[in-house]
Amino acid sequence: MISSTDLYIPSFEDVKKASARIKPYAKRTPVLTSRTLNEISGGNIFFKCENFQRAGAFKFRGACNSVFALAENKASQGVATHSSGNHGQALALAAQMRGIPAYVVMPENSPKVKLDAVEGYGAKVIRCASNQEARESTLENVVNETGAIFIHPYDNENVIAGQGTCAYELLTDYPELDIIMAPVGGGGLISGTAITARHLMPDINVIGTEPEQADDAYQSFKTGKLQKFDTTNTIADGLRTTLCERTFHIIQNNLNDIVTVTDESIIHAMRTIWERMNIIIEASCSVPVAAILEKKIDVTGKKVGVILTGGNVDLDYLPWQKD
Amino acid sequence: MISSTDLYIPSFEDVKKASARIKPYAKRTPVLTSRTLNEISGGNIFFKCENFQRAGAFKFRGACNSVFALAENKASQGVATHSSGNHGQALALAAQMRGIPAYVVMPENSPKVKLDAVEGYGAKVIRCASNQEARESTLENVVNETGAIFIHPYDNENVIAGQGTCAYELLTDYPELDIIMAPVGGGGLISGTAITARHLMPDINVIGTEPEQADDAYQSFKTGKLQKFDTTNTIADGLRTTLCERTFHIIQNNLNDIVTVTDESIIHAMRTIWERMNIIIEASCSVPVAAILEKKIDVTGKKVGVILTGGNVDLDYLPWQKD
Repeated sequence: MISSTDLYIPSFEDVKKASARIKPYAKRTPVLTSRTLNEISGGNIFFKCENFQRAGAFKFRGACNSVFALAENKASQGVATHSSGNHGQALALAAQMRGIPAYVVMPENSPKVKLDAVEGYGAKVIRCASNQEARESTLENVVNETGAIFIHPYDNENVIAGQGTCAYELLTDYPELDIIMAPVGGGGLISGTAITARHLMPDINVIGTEPEQADDAYQSFKTGKLQKFDTTNTIADGLRTTLCERTFHIIQNNLNDIVTVTDESIIHAMRTIWERMNIIIEASCSVPVAAILEKKIDVTGKKVGVILTGGNVDLDYLPWQKD
Repeated sequence: MISSTDLYIPSFEDVKKASARIKPYAKRTPVLTSRTLNEISGGNIFFKCENFQRAGAFKFRGACNSVFALAENKASQGVATHSSGNHGQALALAAQMRGIPAYVVMPENSPKVKLDAVEGYGAKVIRCASNQEARESTLENVVNETGAIFIHPYDNENVIAGQGTCAYELLTDYPELDIIMAPVGGGGLISGTAITARHLMPDINVIGTEPEQADDAYQSFKTGKLQKFDTTNTIADGLRTTLCERTFHIIQNNLNDIVTVTDESIIHAMRTIWERMNIIIEASCSVPVAAILEKKIDVTGKKVGVILTGGNVDLDYLPWQKD
């Protein structure tokens, strides 16, 4: 465990460097608006569409920044991570773009579609048992054998700075926002968002959103003490991870609030966006939208930036359909 | 039946006028690209996203142009049409924006979701039996009783000019396209597209695409004689309509080719766009994509504009799912 005094907290300068570094590789994603969503919510919502990002999620920003920040002699050994989700795909694609190996440790019960995606970007997948201990020991073996650099999905300064580039683009295009909202899983995205937003617009409201069934960040924020829960269960599978010391520190110092929503409202929000905006977002991505629709945050008359984090969905299993 | 000498064929000037007229109401839709689709196809594809248009389809352009082109004294009586699909919704919304009544004749077996959408835009729905004769006689009664102006879904100069504004935007943003592609149903969109493209870029390839199971335009184009088929059956339900004299005339004189694709390839193309681009398109919209993926059109090394026509889908019934 790293003690909190050792933690490097990325600055806005780091976000700017990340933005220049990933520019040739990442998409500057479009911002969409919806008359219908504005009517329903009473606010003026600007959706930053990271579901159109490379590899289908904002995760590519942090992974890309981490991969291209590596010195040549370090990079050649490749990069490694454990992930059953979007970070694995993102790291695989970033490594492919740099032409270095990527090793992704994935639980043996990962859906085939996710394995195929990671392998499709040229990464080597290493299967392990589906528990935290197996993930970590398998990853350690991979790193020891290959010399690859471990890129943590969120407890990594370059990842956090990379995720901040999303809010940097959004606030550059729309400098008059009153509120900026994003989901909270491990806290990488909301940390990068908060660092960027606080620098560019000190008075903006930065709001984290979390599923009720994985509310470790909410509990940590409210109690002022990092809370870790062993198991969480929510349809928003990308948000089951817990904060680390570093992201908790950034959240404590920069967020205005964290609100939580039920899985039912997450599914409703997801379907609403699909139907009304004709774009595909995943359950984890729907959490801030649910917070708006459920009026957990009052957006009446406000200009609100919402980061739509990703769109990686198995189209054979949609959450509103019966089995 | 109007004889062909009476037919007014809209010019590019009409398209420009339409563009100015609808500007306060219609969206200038974004153009998206996909690295993956480019890799799969070997071309460089620019997707004009009319699935993000108001009321979810390009149809709003023609309906809006028709509604706002009406003189004040004519407009006050309202507008009427028969449609079970996107034109009905589009006309309803355009009339609502102008503050005039809209009457939409819909077959009694129309899905509730479509009825709700038309009524949601404030139009009056009149149900009729599900055959062409009932549609036309019911519409005639409505027009006689209300004095509303009939806005045909495609055999109407203002509708055709309005649909042309989509290609106008696309070719203004991307003036170096080699090919422009759109689906063909009644021919309103491809006619407006062809008029615009021929004027702006005389040498561009204008390609119509049609389902094999509703290939009246293909048969008409190849034989040089307008073909009408009584019944058609395809998953691309928006393309079951047949050409009229006017759209056939424009197609004959301006298209380079029409190609057809199977329903199987349409469903595959639809799912590919959903998965790879995270946007929702309807089956009718997927036809030009299918033509590219099936290599019915060789796009290797070419810059290709594809009009993605609409995204109105019933999310409870997706074509790749078993019943």
